[in-house]
Amino acid sequence: MDPFLLAAIEEAEESQLEGGLPIGAVLEHRGVVIGRGRNRQIQHGRVLLHAEIDALENAGRLTPETYRDSTLYVTQAPCPMCCGAILRLGIPRVVIGEAHHYAGATALLHAAGVQVEVVDDGVCRRLVDDYRALHPEIWRELCAGA
Amino acid sequence: MDPFLLAAIEEAEESQLEGGLPIGAVLEHRGVVIGRGRNRQIQHGRVLLHAEIDALENAGRLTPETYRDSTLYVTQAPCPMCCGAILRLGIPRVVIGEAHHYAGATALLHAAGVQVEVVDDGVCRRLVDDYRALHPEIWRELCAGA
Repeated sequence: MDPFLLAAIEEAEESQLEGGLPIGAVLEHRGVVIGRGRNRQIQHGRVLLHAEIDALENAGRLTPETYRDSTLYVTQAPCPMCCGAILRLGIPRVVIGEAHHYAGATALLHAAGVQVEVVDDGVCRRLVDDYRALHPEIWRELCAGA
Repeated sequence: MDPFLLAAIEEAEESQLEGGLPIGAVLEHRGVVIGRGRNRQIQHGRVLLHAEIDALENAGRLTPETYRDSTLYVTQAPCPMCCGAILRLGIPRVVIGEAHHYAGATALLHAAGVQVEVVDDGVCRRLVDDYRALHPEIWRELCAGA
């Protein structure tokens, strides 16, 4: 498997172990992971701490040139906020583990010319399958919808 | 002046005193401020800690019904990420202090049926005028563009 998607899955599994939503993300720049993070909405009580935001913040304050030469890997399709963050920072490419449970706001990325690849990975899908079976109400509250 | 926009301006001024970007935001629900925050990108070294995100996170984990009955006040037009957060949470109304320095991604809000009001407030504009005159390079890095 792609090592960067694998790193994002490891983050998702880490969140699951912490009792959080099993979604992870990694920022890759020229073959090196420069930021990684996971959804911590539940762990930190912060409603907007999605995996993508966590990974991008953990990467620190980078130059515009670095963002423009990076790829964001994420286990689930990104929501409108996370798509907006990708646009805001000028990241040109996003690799998405799976988009069955939630289609995301990838139309925003496509419209802006961001390259979007959906891998349809079984591990990414199973992580959310399992979470939704155990916690359907939390999924509805924090992940369904827009 | 509208007391909620005034509260957002107070947050912007607080950020300015801390050496940060002079942008503030407040979440109002049925006449009560339930979340307030300011841009802390510089103070906290977190590239995505915009005023809107700070205010929404400070409001805590609210019910969908609460978001659907709230208004977000912000001194500057919101970027794509913050517009996405507004859509993600289902906030139906946004009041913007001024949109001269940065037009924001309000087209996303309009397209989704969010009510958008631009006040064109002189204090909001002057705060950014002053900041840009002092720190043009930081403004370009963190606020210009998308």
